[in-house]
Amino acid sequence: MIPVDEALRIVLSVAERLPPVAVPLHEALGLILAEDSLVSCASSETGSLALQDGYAVVASDGPGVYPVITESRAGDDGVGVVVTPGTVAYVTTGGPIPDGADSVVQVEDTEEVTDNVDGLKRVRILVGVPLGNDIRDVGCDIEKDAMVLKAGEQLGSPEIGLLATVGVTIVKVYPRPTVGVLSTGDELVEPETKYLSRGQIRDSNRAMLMAAATQQHCKAVDLGIASDKEDSLSEIFDAAIASDIDMLFTSGGVSMGDRDFVKPCLARIGHIHFEKVFMKPGKPLTFAQITTNSKNIKLSKPVLAFGFPGNPVSCLVCFNLFAVPAIRHLSGWANPQLQRVHTRIAQPIRSDAYRPEYHCAIIRWELDDGSGRPGFIADSTGKQMSSRLLSLKSANALLELPATGQIFEDGNSVQAILISDISSLLMSKLTDSMASLSVRHGPAMQCSARQPTA
Amino acid sequence: MIPVDEALRIVLSVAERLPPVAVPLHEALGLILAEDSLVSCASSETGSLALQDGYAVVASDGPGVYPVITESRAGDDGVGVVVTPGTVAYVTTGGPIPDGADSVVQVEDTEEVTDNVDGLKRVRILVGVPLGNDIRDVGCDIEKDAMVLKAGEQLGSPEIGLLATVGVTIVKVYPRPTVGVLSTGDELVEPETKYLSRGQIRDSNRAMLMAAATQQHCKAVDLGIASDKEDSLSEIFDAAIASDIDMLFTSGGVSMGDRDFVKPCLARIGHIHFEKVFMKPGKPLTFAQITTNSKNIKLSKPVLAFGFPGNPVSCLVCFNLFAVPAIRHLSGWANPQLQRVHTRIAQPIRSDAYRPEYHCAIIRWELDDGSGRPGFIADSTGKQMSSRLLSLKSANALLELPATGQIFEDGNSVQAILISDISSLLMSKLTDSMASLSVRHGPAMQCSARQPTA
Ligand SMILES: [Mg+2]
Ligand SMILES: [Mg+2]
Repeated sequence: MIPVDEALRIVLSVAERLPPVAVPLHEALGLILAEDSLVSCASSETGSLALQDGYAVVASDGPGVYPVITESRAGDDGVGVVVTPGTVAYVTTGGPIPDGADSVVQVEDTEEVTDNVDGLKRVRILVGVPLGNDIRDVGCDIEKDAMVLKAGEQLGSPEIGLLATVGVTIVKVYPRPTVGVLSTGDELVEPETKYLSRGQIRDSNRAMLMAAATQQHCKAVDLGIASDKEDSLSEIFDAAIASDIDMLFTSGGVSMGDRDFVKPCLARIGHIHFEKVFMKPGKPLTFAQITTNSKNIKLSKPVLAFGFPGNPVSCLVCFNLFAVPAIRHLSGWANPQLQRVHTRIAQPIRSDAYRPEYHCAIIRWELDDGSGRPGFIADSTGKQMSSRLLSLKSANALLELPATGQIFEDGNSVQAILISDISSLLMSKLTDSMASLSVRHGPAMQCSARQPTA
Repeated sequence: MIPVDEALRIVLSVAERLPPVAVPLHEALGLILAEDSLVSCASSETGSLALQDGYAVVASDGPGVYPVITESRAGDDGVGVVVTPGTVAYVTTGGPIPDGADSVVQVEDTEEVTDNVDGLKRVRILVGVPLGNDIRDVGCDIEKDAMVLKAGEQLGSPEIGLLATVGVTIVKVYPRPTVGVLSTGDELVEPETKYLSRGQIRDSNRAMLMAAATQQHCKAVDLGIASDKEDSLSEIFDAAIASDIDMLFTSGGVSMGDRDFVKPCLARIGHIHFEKVFMKPGKPLTFAQITTNSKNIKLSKPVLAFGFPGNPVSCLVCFNLFAVPAIRHLSGWANPQLQRVHTRIAQPIRSDAYRPEYHCAIIRWELDDGSGRPGFIADSTGKQMSSRLLSLKSANALLELPATGQIFEDGNSVQAILISDISSLLMSKLTDSMASLSVRHGPAMQCSARQPTA
């Protein structure tokens, strides 16, 4: 039995980044850039642009009534026209600034002049503006030949916009892994089964692992249910690894039962790196690297195999702790580690006396976490039992409890692993308005100059 | 000009939940359940099951050598066999417990007995176990007729597993909105454009908004680039709203320019609820509800229209502040509000003197946020400029700065809106191991019983 740290270290040392692929920009969301040379770019804009609707002026002219000598909205507008002192040009947001003008006065700070006796359009400039006001110069947003994004950066929506701005529409990225998901066990029936016979249970792990892999943006392939027969399991493994998967997720069949054949099957086609982890839940977790098929034919690429325990909570906890970092690593993340935060617990929790425990919880942000300051508060999901999937219902964090057998009292601070997107947490006391901002100037939240780290 | 709060209140009061649809379970990930009656269920399991591989025993027998009278792995195994005191049955994890047995001894706590003179298989039970050890009774995981999930709950991977367990494979959920994304402006050219003429810029907003809507799990429809001509804009709006979209996102054309036609076009086919918001960036944000087409033919369902500003930072900040809650509301979220946390800032930041400001930042969790305790620290993305998309690069939070014109010193605590999934934050000082848990018992993190909330 190896510790969790050591198991994760092994997983990440065995896992290899997938070979980069070139994809169109609209398919690149969320992926990691594989090279930075592509996004070094020539200047993306020509000339300077107005940042406001209004009038391009010579700043030193100041307020007064001026003739409008051209209108410059887009493209070639105003080409060849020079704004000389004593004249102005109409401009709109994003429109080019005509030569000669050095500043923009927004339309709100001007007045139309209607008595144009000579037919010349005039405008009254009401305010003085500094040089360069509301003008965006070439190179101000993105410098010529600047490196906009580097290899290793993740492409969110702003980064997609940046690449579009500089004209990069094909990007080289690390793809996401394709994962095959298989459930094993003679007791399992399809979820569609209406009436269960004695000893039967519906297969929940496959739908759950497919969903979990999809949440990690993998392509998930449904491999069905395998019975507890060694030869049929072996056949299914062969078919799965022949179908171009990068990872194989099985559940069940890794315990001490005399028909738990996942480990012997994996051992014949690859190398088992570990088969028990010192943790609760999830002890029977097995991890292997498959390198051949059962006919001993070498695979074109190795397949990472996770033999998850059959109990659904153990299964999903192991997925989060080990498969998520592995998926991130294959997908090119520089840091595939899980995000940890600290949280105070809302109820007393007794930790296991022997194994480090991962306790399912729902964390939320509170203005006062009990210490008089803002922080996370964790509610336990209740009874923790590896077969009780309700333990994981709504959980967004796993509390990491060291094996002391002691009670963590409510209000204690513990470390928690985030297992889902908390940007959509429900809030109990935080308001959603700027109005609440005054709170942060209150004594509880005020902080003096930063203290040196202890 | 209305305050941000008021604008959001209007958006959420105009937005309506989409009509629920029934989808197969594998398409329900991330969606909100629309009814709970479906998931109230009959008991999902029959009989009791073993939680470990080992031997089903009569607990009061205690340690000793016993004959193994049957093997019960799955299904009908051991039916009709009764474990009487002085006998045991072999069981595997998930296998049914034969009648008469009331506890399980795991295989690790037993020894094979090899000298079977009479051919009867025997086992040595090495430990005594309490009644009910490693047995899962009917009703223990999910009670008969229990409500597994309620309307309004979001379906993550554990919830998908729960529904599979109880045999629910079709679920009634709120669908995600379909959104049309249009850029407007004569200065815009396609991102593929290699060389730009004077005054041209590549359209970044459309790719960016499509990506942002996809991240919110919307179906995004690319409506292209519209020129600054009133009739062509009107035609594009008609075509867009005829194509069954729930929301229309435009960018540009909402400023004070004489060719900013988005607002007049929206006004003719619907009702403009607001057209300026007191915020920085994002002031020109326009929000309307479209009810007819330009021929005055009533739509089968109203379309929510967001006229985002053309500057990309303003555009994406407005998307996050207003469109994300609207999308959540349409998708059936009980609480569509954005998640806020508090964070200390790593650099001094001057706030705008007039308008509340949303300052792009990258937050991370630190063991010591400067106060001696764990917390978020925010790094500004640098120069904040509505046209400078680099301001949003890698940003996962918007700092909410009230309009004081004052400098927030580094170390000050401010409120921040999470705009992306922080479960994948990079960590600088947190270790990723249980080993670091000892830290939390240090003085900085120790806390006594919870204080009453001030
Ligand atoms: Mg099994
Ligand atoms: Mg425009």
